Amino acid sequence: MSTLPTVARDVGRILQVVSLMLVVSIVVAGVNAEFYAMPAFAISAVIMGGVGTVLARWFRDAPSPGKVEAMITAASAWGVLAFLGSLPFLLIAWAIYINPYPVWMNTPAVDSTTDVFRDPLNGIFESISGYTSTGLTMASVEDDLPRSLHWWRSFTEWVGGVGVIVLTVAILARPGSGSLTLFESEAREKKSKVMPSVVSTVKEIWKIYLGLTIAAITLLLIVGMPLWPAINHAMTGIATGGFSVHGASIGEYGAIIQYAVVPIMVAGSIAFPIHYLILKGEIENFYKDLQTRWIFIWFTVGSLALTALLLTGGDASGQFTTLEEHFRAGLFQFVSATSNTGFGTAAIGGGTERAMSAGATFLICLGMLTGAAAGSTVGGLKLIRVATLLKGTLWQIRGVFAPDSAVRQLKLGERTLDEQQAEREYTEATVVFVLWIVFLIIGVAVMLWALSPEYPVEYVIFDVMSAQSNVGLDAGITGPDMPDVTKWMLILNMWVGRLEIIPVAVLIGAVLKRFDLYT
Amino acid sequence: MSTLPTVARDVGRILQVVSLMLVVSIVVAGVNAEFYAMPAFAISAVIMGGVGTVLARWFRDAPSPGKVEAMITAASAWGVLAFLGSLPFLLIAWAIYINPYPVWMNTPAVDSTTDVFRDPLNGIFESISGYTSTGLTMASVEDDLPRSLHWWRSFTEWVGGVGVIVLTVAILARPGSGSLTLFESEAREKKSKVMPSVVSTVKEIWKIYLGLTIAAITLLLIVGMPLWPAINHAMTGIATGGFSVHGASIGEYGAIIQYAVVPIMVAGSIAFPIHYLILKGEIENFYKDLQTRWIFIWFTVGSLALTALLLTGGDASGQFTTLEEHFRAGLFQFVSATSNTGFGTAAIGGGTERAMSAGATFLICLGMLTGAAAGSTVGGLKLIRVATLLKGTLWQIRGVFAPDSAVRQLKLGERTLDEQQAEREYTEATVVFVLWIVFLIIGVAVMLWALSPEYPVEYVIFDVMSAQSNVGLDAGITGPDMPDVTKWMLILNMWVGRLEIIPVAVLIGAVLKRFDLYT
Ligand SMILES: [K+]
Ligand SMILES: [K+]
Repeated sequence: MSTLPTVARDVGRILQVVSLMLVVSIVVAGVNAEFYAMPAFAISAVIMGGVGTVLARWFRDAPSPGKVEAMITAASAWGVLAFLGSLPFLLIAWAIYINPYPVWMNTPAVDSTTDVFRDPLNGIFESISGYTSTGLTMASVEDDLPRSLHWWRSFTEWVGGVGVIVLTVAILARPGSGSLTLFESEAREKKSKVMPSVVSTVKEIWKIYLGLTIAAITLLLIVGMPLWPAINHAMTGIATGGFSVHGASIGEYGAIIQYAVVPIMVAGSIAFPIHYLILKGEIENFYKDLQTRWIFIWFTVGSLALTALLLTGGDASGQFTTLEEHFRAGLFQFVSATSNTGFGTAAIGGGTERAMSAGATFLICLGMLTGAAAGSTVGGLKLIRVATLLKGTLWQIRGVFAPDSAVRQLKLGERTLDEQQAEREYTEATVVFVLWIVFLIIGVAVMLWALSPEYPVEYVIFDVMSAQSNVGLDAGITGPDMPDVTKWMLILNMWVGRLEIIPVAVLIGAVLKRFDLYT
Repeated sequence: MSTLPTVARDVGRILQVVSLMLVVSIVVAGVNAEFYAMPAFAISAVIMGGVGTVLARWFRDAPSPGKVEAMITAASAWGVLAFLGSLPFLLIAWAIYINPYPVWMNTPAVDSTTDVFRDPLNGIFESISGYTSTGLTMASVEDDLPRSLHWWRSFTEWVGGVGVIVLTVAILARPGSGSLTLFESEAREKKSKVMPSVVSTVKEIWKIYLGLTIAAITLLLIVGMPLWPAINHAMTGIATGGFSVHGASIGEYGAIIQYAVVPIMVAGSIAFPIHYLILKGEIENFYKDLQTRWIFIWFTVGSLALTALLLTGGDASGQFTTLEEHFRAGLFQFVSATSNTGFGTAAIGGGTERAMSAGATFLICLGMLTGAAAGSTVGGLKLIRVATLLKGTLWQIRGVFAPDSAVRQLKLGERTLDEQQAEREYTEATVVFVLWIVFLIIGVAVMLWALSPEYPVEYVIFDVMSAQSNVGLDAGITGPDMPDVTKWMLILNMWVGRLEIIPVAVLIGAVLKRFDLYT
């Protein structure tokens, strides 16, 4: 396969860059006086940087990547990072367990939350959950984790989040299209170089991302969150990642902080090209851009609908009393789900115990499925694809009535597609949708097979949907005690979901091609 | 709308023909000495025949139908029949309740099973369940129904079944294609007359249908089923309808009869053009035809998988003891579900009580979703469409690698599609799939909203899936005591599912067109 050297070289380069994250984390561990954690990050940095350097050197003469190689590189990089990014979890857990260091290095006592990461699988789960900005966790009580691991979890989500924006906006972008979807006709131009404008685009993305993160930290400090959680929650909020430093997530705090987190999640849901335009003063994009308009409409409608469900029997375990509590829970959980952030302020399910009703659970599932804007850090199908699916289906039906000679167009937001474009984008959306459903069915089947039948089915579907949409809310099923096969299944769902399935499918396609299985 | 007169005329003609069913039923009631039921059928016949005649006369000069009109006529006819076909239920229930007749007319005592049909909604539900060959029922203990209503239920399923075959094979068929799917390019040729060969095709279908029904009656008599249930079960088996004359369905009988019913359901699953070829001696179609081959593969694999699930915890309520019992239940339920027949020999759910596990329930759901062959009486997506969806999706992904100059083909069974055909059929399949999921979500949402939260979600999904795939198995939820809104919802699911959604969508499209909402 001629693409292999290119992919290996580029994955190597990514590892080289990402290994700098581990170097930064050595410093963070030191600043927090967790000196026992510094060797773990150092060793991890050497391994990740070393593997990256070997790959980058070995294949340095590989040809430049086209779109196909870019997709395969993305799919591979997220997979490799999941494994190498698990090293700090593994090494810190073992360092605490063995305690080989002098007293001044501050090794803490063994704690049950951190100790689960002595099992490499738990660290791999946590690492891919971080890099995919999912936020499902193997940590039972996040408060008990070392700050170094708080940081590492938040940092993986933050970098993973910006990584997805760069991938979708800069690398797989279709020139001149706001939809940022990828399509085969571009992908076929294997020899087209990644545009030189990519560098400046990436710079702009980083600037906005950093600015939003600082703004989020400031906001959280103003409403009274202490510095350490403010830094972490701002990073994981803008990344729509959802890792928290508390077992109770944002439920740890009062109403004002909970409301303050909502706009941070919304900011993470908006496409970065739109952020760019709005920051340049083109405020009208709030309502003119199809996806941004629908974020506000859908978040509002969904939050009110969830509140109504919670008021009419949806709050099966009686968590809420006042109207304001119902509304706040409905708003926060729906925005958290649909922005694919995964912060929580209330229980959706209690594992085998009931918390919310099946109806409320499925409404949140619907939010997770749609997600928000392509071109942001969110997961799920993305609103542009949902619009293409629904409007495109109606357009196909109306086509039955159109005379052959008719010039047919499909209007999607500001764009007007001719018949050929419309067919192409509709097909792209349906391919993703079909594969999405297939992986969802596989995930639910494996979970039902491996889990106790005591878990209500809606909660099982919820956790799989949460993984595949990179949300991170859970209904009380996901945790260190679940069977290994279900951890691997959710790892697959997170990986497939993060890459919007097609790059993974292209990776599979590359394998098929290798074996000459394509016609 | 210029299509309205044509549709009205053709629906009228259909009503004229179908009113003959009611005339035949007068005789059946008489033969069974249920003289009190004869006026009900007579009145119904006059009303249905009268409405039909008025429509047919009034619009007799309407232009000939094209494909669009045929689709709208089909969607309308099934809807109108649901209402008019409910009259015998309503009138017989009231006749028993009021008892206005002399003693020799044999009016029985009021019975709780029959009495629910004094509510017109229950009759409409039963009628559309019959005409769509679904088999969900409002009758609690079918044994207690008058034979006239046994007959009317079976007859609606039998005629509804052949109606679907005629619709898909003769009227909406694509010439030269084995797939029997409809597509817009044909539909656009509004002026194309229905082919003269339709009459001879319909004749052949009727001959085969009648032959298979007689063969089924004979088989059931041989294995020991009494005449009356043999006639009814043969009719509803070949129609893959699934109404039974027993509350316990085929579970009323022993193992031998249960096994004997399986090939009847399989026969009903095979496309009628394939039956025709096989009867002409071309036996190789059993394995050469894509759909027929997959019926045998999928039924076998699914039955064994369900047996395995039942053996490993899936039989949550302990219904089965021996290995043979597990196998027989797995085989019968899977074949009944996937052939969309809906006969039962075991409980899948007991309403709020558990019978089968969620995993087993969902495996049966998967069978209901796929269904069997297009061109037979089954519902669901149909195997050809499932094959198009799955192979087409892989084909789209492989397309990413193909150079622009490549001549790409998609092989579906015996047919080799060029790129344009493949795109067209893939789009047709995805449109149906997207709409299918949308209506399923709507159905489940309404059920969850209106039903007690005590019902496990998998059983709620099961009953909606059963309605939309025209199966008729239920998990203990569907019955006369369910809220009216859920009955209306299932009525909609049955109607939409029977017509494979697109004709209903075209009907909606016609309305949209009327209001100039299409671009
Ligand atoms: K998340
Ligand atoms: K049926």
